Amino acid sequence: MKQVSQRSVLAVDLGGTKIVAAVVTPTGKILPRSSCLTLADKGPAAVIDRLISVADIAVDRAKLKTADLDGVAIAAAGILDTARGVVTTSPNLPRWRNVHLRDIVAERLNVATCLVNDASAAALGEHRFGVGKGLANLIYLTVSTGIGGGIMVDGKLYEGTDGCAGELGHMIIEATGPKCNCGSYGCLEVLASGTAMAREAVSRIRDGEASVVAQLVDGVLDNVTAKILATAARRGDLLACQIVHQSATYLGIGLANLVNIFNPQIIIVGGGVSRMGGMLLKPAREVVKKRAFRLPAQTVQIIKSRLGHDAGILGAAAYVYEQKLEEAAR
Amino acid sequence: MKQVSQRSVLAVDLGGTKIVAAVVTPTGKILPRSSCLTLADKGPAAVIDRLISVADIAVDRAKLKTADLDGVAIAAAGILDTARGVVTTSPNLPRWRNVHLRDIVAERLNVATCLVNDASAAALGEHRFGVGKGLANLIYLTVSTGIGGGIMVDGKLYEGTDGCAGELGHMIIEATGPKCNCGSYGCLEVLASGTAMAREAVSRIRDGEASVVAQLVDGVLDNVTAKILATAARRGDLLACQIVHQSATYLGIGLANLVNIFNPQIIIVGGGVSRMGGMLLKPAREVVKKRAFRLPAQTVQIIKSRLGHDAGILGAAAYVYEQKLEEAAR
Repeated sequence: MKQVSQRSVLAVDLGGTKIVAAVVTPTGKILPRSSCLTLADKGPAAVIDRLISVADIAVDRAKLKTADLDGVAIAAAGILDTARGVVTTSPNLPRWRNVHLRDIVAERLNVATCLVNDASAAALGEHRFGVGKGLANLIYLTVSTGIGGGIMVDGKLYEGTDGCAGELGHMIIEATGPKCNCGSYGCLEVLASGTAMAREAVSRIRDGEASVVAQLVDGVLDNVTAKILATAARRGDLLACQIVHQSATYLGIGLANLVNIFNPQIIIVGGGVSRMGGMLLKPAREVVKKRAFRLPAQTVQIIKSRLGHDAGILGAAAYVYEQKLEEAAR
Repeated sequence: MKQVSQRSVLAVDLGGTKIVAAVVTPTGKILPRSSCLTLADKGPAAVIDRLISVADIAVDRAKLKTADLDGVAIAAAGILDTARGVVTTSPNLPRWRNVHLRDIVAERLNVATCLVNDASAAALGEHRFGVGKGLANLIYLTVSTGIGGGIMVDGKLYEGTDGCAGELGHMIIEATGPKCNCGSYGCLEVLASGTAMAREAVSRIRDGEASVVAQLVDGVLDNVTAKILATAARRGDLLACQIVHQSATYLGIGLANLVNIFNPQIIIVGGGVSRMGGMLLKPAREVVKKRAFRLPAQTVQIIKSRLGHDAGILGAAAYVYEQKLEEAAR
C-alpha cells in the first residue's frame, strides 16, 4: 500500500441537537472543538450555514486554514447514500430529503469532503483509537434516543452497496411489535432505545403506577429520560428497575442476533444509554448466553465504549484517511 | 496476488440425509458424483467411514488418485469452528460434539482438508459460478428443513472470528415466539423453514381444519412437507395458501433485517423450499419493501438460486482454492 502524506482533517458531527466540529491530527489528537445548536426545524439551508460557521471556527481554533486540511468528514445519522454524498432521510433532521450535503460543504469550504453515517464513524473510531483497536471483526451499537450501528469486517468499515449498511437498530425482533419511527414494527430501536424506555415509563406512570420517577422530574413527565430512569433504578424504584430490565432483555436479543450473524470478536455498546453500564449490560449479556450459539457467545466480548462522544469525531477523521489510502491504492 | 497452480479438488457435502462427494475442476466442472445415505444415527465414526468411502469412489470416478488433488473441502451444517476444523454441534448430526472432522479426514485421505459451513459454501458457489458472479456484497439464505446463511463481503466469504458467522436462520424475529431447535425462541428458522410450515399444517389439520393436504399424503400427516403444501397451494387449498403466505411474511421480515443490516446488492434464496418460487418470494419481497429502508430495499435484488444443490459442491471446491491463495499470499 502506498504511503500517503497526512495532514490534519476536519471532523464534523452533525447531530439532531448539536453540531460539533474539530480538527483532528493524523495521530488522533482532537484539537479544540467548536459547536452550536443544530436547530433542525429551521430546515437544511440554515443548518448547513451553521455547520459551515462551526467548521470555520474549529479550523481557526486549530490555527489552520481550510487549505491546510487533508479533507473534511461529516458524520450524520440517517440513511446516507455515501457513494453520492447524499442524506436521503434522517430521523434527526426531519425536513431533509436527498440533500447533497457532501458536495455543498465541499464547495463552500473548498476542501474534499465525505459523508459517513455517525454510528459507522464511531465503529471506525473505536477500531482505530478505542477498545476495538486492531481487531479484525467488530460491531458497534449506539443506544441513545435511537439505536444505530457500525460494522468492521477484516479491519475495514463495511458500508454496503450504497453506504447505508449497519442499521442495526432497525432489525425487527418482535414481528408484530409497536410501530417504529422508520415505518416498520418491533424494531430493536422501538423496544430498547432511551426513547422507548422513557415512553414506557411515562405510559405506566400515567396509568397510575407509583414511581419515584415522577418526583425526579417534578411531575413534568415530558422530562423523563433514560438517565432519570437509571437514577431511579439505582435507588431501587421497582418501575424503573422493570423498565431497564425489559430494555436490557430486548437489547440482549438484538445482541444475540448480531452474535449469531457476525460471530464478532467484540461488540462495543456506546451512546448515552450505555452509561447505565452493568445495570443494562449484565442482563443483556445473560440473554446472549442463553439465546445465541455457544461458540460465538463464548468468543464475543460485549463491552461499553470508552471513547464516548469522541468515537464519532475520531472515526470521521479516520474515514478521511481511509478514503485517501483507497484513492492512493487505486 | 501470487499465481497458484490449480489442480482439481474434492468437495464433500455432508448432509443430514445424504453424503455427496465429487471432484471439481479449477474451472468449476463437477465430475461424476458419488453418494450414500448419511445414517447419522449410527454416530460419528460410522458416518466418517461412509464419507471416506464415497470420497474414494468420487476420486476413482474422476480417474484420479487422492495424491493428484489440490485439497479436500467438507461442507457441513452446524456450528463449525473452521479455524480448528471442528464440528462443535450440528442439528443434522445429532450425536456429534466437537468432532475434529478436518484432521480425521486429512489423515485418512492423506490430503490437506478444510471444513466449511454448508450455507457459507453455497454463498461462495453462487458468487463464483452462479447468479452472484463477481458482485461485492452478497447474502445467501438457504430455506429447507432449517434455514442457514452465508455472507460475502468485498468478494470474500465472511466467516467471523471462529468461522461460524452467518447463522441467519437463528436471527430472533419474534422475541417470545415458539421454541427453536437451537434452544432460543422465535428464530427465523422456527417460523419460516419447511419444517415450520409442515408442523403448522399438521397442527391445524389435527385441529379439524379441512385441507386437500390430508388427501395428498393419504392421511399420513407425518408425510406432510413444504413440497406437499406448495402442491396444495397451487390447487388453491386455503389452509396451504395461508401457511405459505405466513411463512413468506416471516421470511420477508428476516430479509428486511438483512437488507437493513447489510445493504447488499443481492440476496439469493436457495434450499428446497425456495423451489416454491414466486409463491414464496413475491410476498416476501413485498414485506421487504414495506419494512426495510427505502434506499437499500430499492437496491437489493432478491432472487432464487439457479445453481441449486451444486452451489454447495462448487462453493466447497472454491473454498479450497481461496485457502490456497491466502496461504500463497502470506
